[in-house]
Amino acid sequence: MIQIGLFGYGCVGRGLYKALQQTPQLNATIKKIVVKNKLKPRDINHELFAYDKEEILNDREINLVIELIDDADGAFKILTVALQNGKPVISANKKMLANHLEEILLLQKKYNLPVLYEAAVAGSIPIIRSIEEYYNIDTITHINGILNGTTNYILTQCFKEAKTFETALKEAQLKGFAESNPTMDIEAFDPTFKLILLLAHAFGVVVKPEDVLNFGITQLTLFDIQFAKEKKQTIKLIAQAYQTDKGIAAYVLPKFIGEQHPLYNIHEEFNAVEINGSFNDNQLLKGKGAGGFPTAAAVLADIFALSNQYRYPYLKQQLKPVNFINNDHLLKIYVRYATDEQFEAFHFHQILARYDGNAYRYAIGYITIKQLIQAKLNQGKGAFVAEIEETPIQINSGVKIPIKNKLPAVESIH
Amino acid sequence: MIQIGLFGYGCVGRGLYKALQQTPQLNATIKKIVVKNKLKPRDINHELFAYDKEEILNDREINLVIELIDDADGAFKILTVALQNGKPVISANKKMLANHLEEILLLQKKYNLPVLYEAAVAGSIPIIRSIEEYYNIDTITHINGILNGTTNYILTQCFKEAKTFETALKEAQLKGFAESNPTMDIEAFDPTFKLILLLAHAFGVVVKPEDVLNFGITQLTLFDIQFAKEKKQTIKLIAQAYQTDKGIAAYVLPKFIGEQHPLYNIHEEFNAVEINGSFNDNQLLKGKGAGGFPTAAAVLADIFALSNQYRYPYLKQQLKPVNFINNDHLLKIYVRYATDEQFEAFHFHQILARYDGNAYRYAIGYITIKQLIQAKLNQGKGAFVAEIEETPIQINSGVKIPIKNKLPAVESIH
Repeated sequence: MIQIGLFGYGCVGRGLYKALQQTPQLNATIKKIVVKNKLKPRDINHELFAYDKEEILNDREINLVIELIDDADGAFKILTVALQNGKPVISANKKMLANHLEEILLLQKKYNLPVLYEAAVAGSIPIIRSIEEYYNIDTITHINGILNGTTNYILTQCFKEAKTFETALKEAQLKGFAESNPTMDIEAFDPTFKLILLLAHAFGVVVKPEDVLNFGITQLTLFDIQFAKEKKQTIKLIAQAYQTDKGIAAYVLPKFIGEQHPLYNIHEEFNAVEINGSFNDNQLLKGKGAGGFPTAAAVLADIFALSNQYRYPYLKQQLKPVNFINNDHLLKIYVRYATDEQFEAFHFHQILARYDGNAYRYAIGYITIKQLIQAKLNQGKGAFVAEIEETPIQINSGVKIPIKNKLPAVESIH
Repeated sequence: MIQIGLFGYGCVGRGLYKALQQTPQLNATIKKIVVKNKLKPRDINHELFAYDKEEILNDREINLVIELIDDADGAFKILTVALQNGKPVISANKKMLANHLEEILLLQKKYNLPVLYEAAVAGSIPIIRSIEEYYNIDTITHINGILNGTTNYILTQCFKEAKTFETALKEAQLKGFAESNPTMDIEAFDPTFKLILLLAHAFGVVVKPEDVLNFGITQLTLFDIQFAKEKKQTIKLIAQAYQTDKGIAAYVLPKFIGEQHPLYNIHEEFNAVEINGSFNDNQLLKGKGAGGFPTAAAVLADIFALSNQYRYPYLKQQLKPVNFINNDHLLKIYVRYATDEQFEAFHFHQILARYDGNAYRYAIGYITIKQLIQAKLNQGKGAFVAEIEETPIQINSGVKIPIKNKLPAVESIH
């Protein structure tokens, strides 16, 4: 009999409560729910609620802690004490997990207890367990993921309905697909946390968020959308991790992709992960990345796994010499910028093309991941940055831009 | 240390041999390979080969039998003796597994040994284990699968390149996507065997192939393709299983689907399975359904699972009262036929529309699954049969067919 102590009763917490009621075969019940707000009206039996975390952490009958709160620091404290007190933990808090991954790996060993977090990456998609139990037997060469439903919804609206980023964001907020403070999503921090979890399982790399490049979609304009459309491409915010000859390249960037790309048809708030392996060739897993019930489905699966004594084997960390991140890798990048200072912040390794118009200016060329991280810390943060597929695309076909100045040296035009 | 006795050294057998050499962490080696043909040249050490099945079945050092032969009856004999002799079995033989599923369930219990067969359904896609370990915690409401790469390749060619079925089939044979005798694929027996395995895992139903409706794509003509295109639809060969109010509806039929359908963009030889659950909402898993390495990837994952004492829990059979098939379910069906006898074989429950031209004649309406099985056994086998999505589609917009005879009574036109 699993007796659950639940932290948080938001959208996912409510979904989990209802889903558990319809899943008697799991033999699991919520014994107590700790929330912050005493005054908020609740839709279930009030006696379940408590307001002091010790009421769960010190309850000897509770043998599973599920943590579904927003506060990453608070969540890590809960996780630590729960393990100390002999309770396994299920969490959906990607920020907490990514920020403290190294410590969480050690804590699991120290207390010989599992921490499971399927719901933290791509919501309902069983990606972490599939990697550990299935894809890791193969050699994973490349992972591509749409790991954030909010930005995918916004990008879909921008491309299908020709809306501006600002309009699409407001609509996403009205529909509940974006939070009132959407920074974590639209600036691509949320998918970066998720990528960090995938990196640990698929490549055995443990890395800090600040070492992973991410640009979001806040600077996207109608020009960038038009630029993509004229090449019969779309723009998706893609989290990538792949083997290079000098380690693993890992980053989250908007990317121009054509209809041959497996993520081209992932629309609206859906998430998807594409896995390329030496033997399995190409796999795609698609599903809802958020929402009460879809996320609860992943938590339910974790409860079931725990009831079968499951814990993540972290197979890639055991089998290989520890892998490392290759931030010297060169990416083919489109930078649409406003000022010379913005452009200069990027320190292109090689420029392939550069255009200069009254309204828009952009450059295409190769930049290292490290330089892109630096550019974002400096003036580059105001530019729209997107990766370009290495397959040649025709640059600027039919875009009419009056050239304002003579261009500086261009090394080659594709 | 896993010592493997391998039956069969075709495309998948060779893929497995090579994949195992690159996967030392599995700690598994092939000790012996039993093949039929003594004269065929082999690309690896000849001493591995034997020609008498007893050389594997009676070898006490061999602790895993992997069966990758074509002959379904021979495969079942191997499986039975292997279990009798205390050896777990991995098989990719969907025909054998579907024909003998009930016995195989009993044999696993009797000898307390596992039979795993991830490679038998959708090749590289980890669908059976995902259902057992993940989706079964949820309530699965509807499975849609493109489970046959040969027919999906042919249909893609027909729709993208405007080829006839005959041309596309010949090309598929030249490219190795179709066998010289393609009946099992193009008449939709192969995906029916796979659907039977999915039914057991997702719904706890064990059913014989003869009780599952299947129509293939051999009767597809350019008219049917044109009919679909004018409605901005495509035709896919889809294996379906879903809950109805009187049991599980399960069948394999060509189906007209629009671009909103999750399987619309599954092209070429790819397989895909869409799973709808009460909580997880909508999931899609896509990957290669055949080929030496992709199929070997699934076998490798089974070897890894066995090394962790894994066996299928057949969760849905344990949890529920045994489910049953509802062949009285009504489907909305398009029948394009040549003769009155063909039409009459279908015994429509309700006709929605009927058209009669010099070259082509078709009817659309509701038919029970049982009647469709009967129709196929009678004159109906020469007709092209496809399911129509329940969402209303405009029938016959713009198709110009000279009407030859006055039509019989039509109950309604959508």
